[in-house]
Amino acid sequence: MINTQFLNVQDIADIINKIGIENVLQGIADYITSDYLRWQEFDKCPRVANYSTDGVIELMPVSNATSYAFKYVNGHPKNIQYGLPTVMAFGILADVNTGVPLLLSELTLTTALRTAAMSVVAARVLARDDCKSMALIGNGAQSEFQALAFYYLYGINEIRLYDIDSAATDKLVRNLSHTSLHLTRCESIKEAVSGADIITTITADKTHATIITLDMIEQGVHINGVGGDCPGKTELHADVLRAASVFVEYEPQTRIEGDLQQLPASFAVTELWKVLSGESHGRTTDSEVTVFDSVGFALEDYSALRYMRDISNKLRKKRKISLVPTLADPKDLFSII
Amino acid sequence: MINTQFLNVQDIADIINKIGIENVLQGIADYITSDYLRWQEFDKCPRVANYSTDGVIELMPVSNATSYAFKYVNGHPKNIQYGLPTVMAFGILADVNTGVPLLLSELTLTTALRTAAMSVVAARVLARDDCKSMALIGNGAQSEFQALAFYYLYGINEIRLYDIDSAATDKLVRNLSHTSLHLTRCESIKEAVSGADIITTITADKTHATIITLDMIEQGVHINGVGGDCPGKTELHADVLRAASVFVEYEPQTRIEGDLQQLPASFAVTELWKVLSGESHGRTTDSEVTVFDSVGFALEDYSALRYMRDISNKLRKKRKISLVPTLADPKDLFSII
Repeated sequence: MINTQFLNVQDIADIINKIGIENVLQGIADYITSDYLRWQEFDKCPRVANYSTDGVIELMPVSNATSYAFKYVNGHPKNIQYGLPTVMAFGILADVNTGVPLLLSELTLTTALRTAAMSVVAARVLARDDCKSMALIGNGAQSEFQALAFYYLYGINEIRLYDIDSAATDKLVRNLSHTSLHLTRCESIKEAVSGADIITTITADKTHATIITLDMIEQGVHINGVGGDCPGKTELHADVLRAASVFVEYEPQTRIEGDLQQLPASFAVTELWKVLSGESHGRTTDSEVTVFDSVGFALEDYSALRYMRDISNKLRKKRKISLVPTLADPKDLFSII
Repeated sequence: MINTQFLNVQDIADIINKIGIENVLQGIADYITSDYLRWQEFDKCPRVANYSTDGVIELMPVSNATSYAFKYVNGHPKNIQYGLPTVMAFGILADVNTGVPLLLSELTLTTALRTAAMSVVAARVLARDDCKSMALIGNGAQSEFQALAFYYLYGINEIRLYDIDSAATDKLVRNLSHTSLHLTRCESIKEAVSGADIITTITADKTHATIITLDMIEQGVHINGVGGDCPGKTELHADVLRAASVFVEYEPQTRIEGDLQQLPASFAVTELWKVLSGESHGRTTDSEVTVFDSVGFALEDYSALRYMRDISNKLRKKRKISLVPTLADPKDLFSII
């Protein structure tokens, strides 16, 4: 009997509640770091995207000599109108030597976790050592995960919040009220980023937005640019990239999808695995501006799937199917937990 | 509540048993024909393959303005040694406007059905009108489906069998003993193809094989080349292609994967949709040799998923998860039915 383990949304929520989100984020960050240090073992490609009027559906495969993983993920900003999440995902971990799918898992919750864990993995080598405050621009479905990852794994204790939809910020504040994080609501992006050590942008609008402009940038800041992750969807003004040292996951993909899409191919960037392995420099001075132009790479899903498989085996979990989460408020993914 | 319908292997087997394989093959052939006639509506790409020592894992996405589909499929010839099928598959039909996965279905059984249905769709415009006999070289997991598709949908009444593994041929004969098909066991490929109106090759060996050579080819034959479907995996000698009119599903993919991989990019081929739509000629004379260099294209899975969704809705099927089939004899996929 070939059995494919299945982790549905509730299973992942149960894991988080059992293990604690701090430990899950840390565990995924460790798995990501470990896999990024084996970067050259992996067969990589930019994700395969089918674009439509209102969104995109993408497949993200990656493999090495033992395992194969892929993620299905969509991006449909207008889904909010229909009461659906803008991003939904699921994926497979398979035995590369036989093709047997070993694990089918929901990856909507897990994508939020791994994206936040990845942001911290990058910030550890790119941000200043003394960072305490972070601006969080965009307070949607993934924002709590970013906030908690930087709180638990990085030592950020003040987060400066801004969203064009103040109800989204209400939700974030409510969801994180149990923590000792100091949450500051701001009236503008400019106010939020002023004085912040780290700026995280994680907005959903599918437009060439310029949420962050050069005049907002202070010396030594690290920008964790998460929401500019699709052709035609950017967050940072090109001048911000030009004024910074820019780091990426997988360069061929980020050139297509990242804020980097605004710049010519000759604009130099550094792949993060080189910094993690010590082959390249990360931040070199306290005054430097660094940008992690994050788009989300298949290897992070591979890491997350490995982590979830290992932890669910430890917890002896069994399962049925429920591929994407159901949310009363589609901006409130956190409510599942 | 977002529900993703799930059709496991047993569900598909139940559908076939309820509706009859003749009707299922005809239904899928009709859906394929209808979708091929809308060819230019679709966002297409060659499949995305991750190769390893012993096999390949592939993702095959396709979409139009309403639906998105992808298939996960492996090809691991050595799986037989471990009691596993060489080809296993599953896939998704999704709403392109929201990204919601509507249907998760097994596609191992379904791939065998749709590949056979596609072979007939091609033969209808490429083979002679008076075809009665077919050579079937390779009697593995998909062979019964080819045999039955040509029997029920095309009027073939004699099939000339050859496989290097005589136990595979035993199995095929046993599985089809309930039909009035005249099955002739042959001692060699040469004997099997001699006098056959159609030659179907569907072998699993991942080598540059030349199962069919020019000296075996008789005037007017149609070759349905199914097993040469991956870089390094061919079945027809290049001279056979040179002596024939060659038809393909999606040219960019077949140039990489088909028997066509042996020939330069300048070798002319015709995409099948053009023949179906009347834009190009299929067979023009009774003496012409035609080759359908079939590799399996994502659009056929889209059609099969649409068919299975529609028929399962009619049958009011509900379901749980079982992504790939379990076979006592991995060459005997037909035993599930």
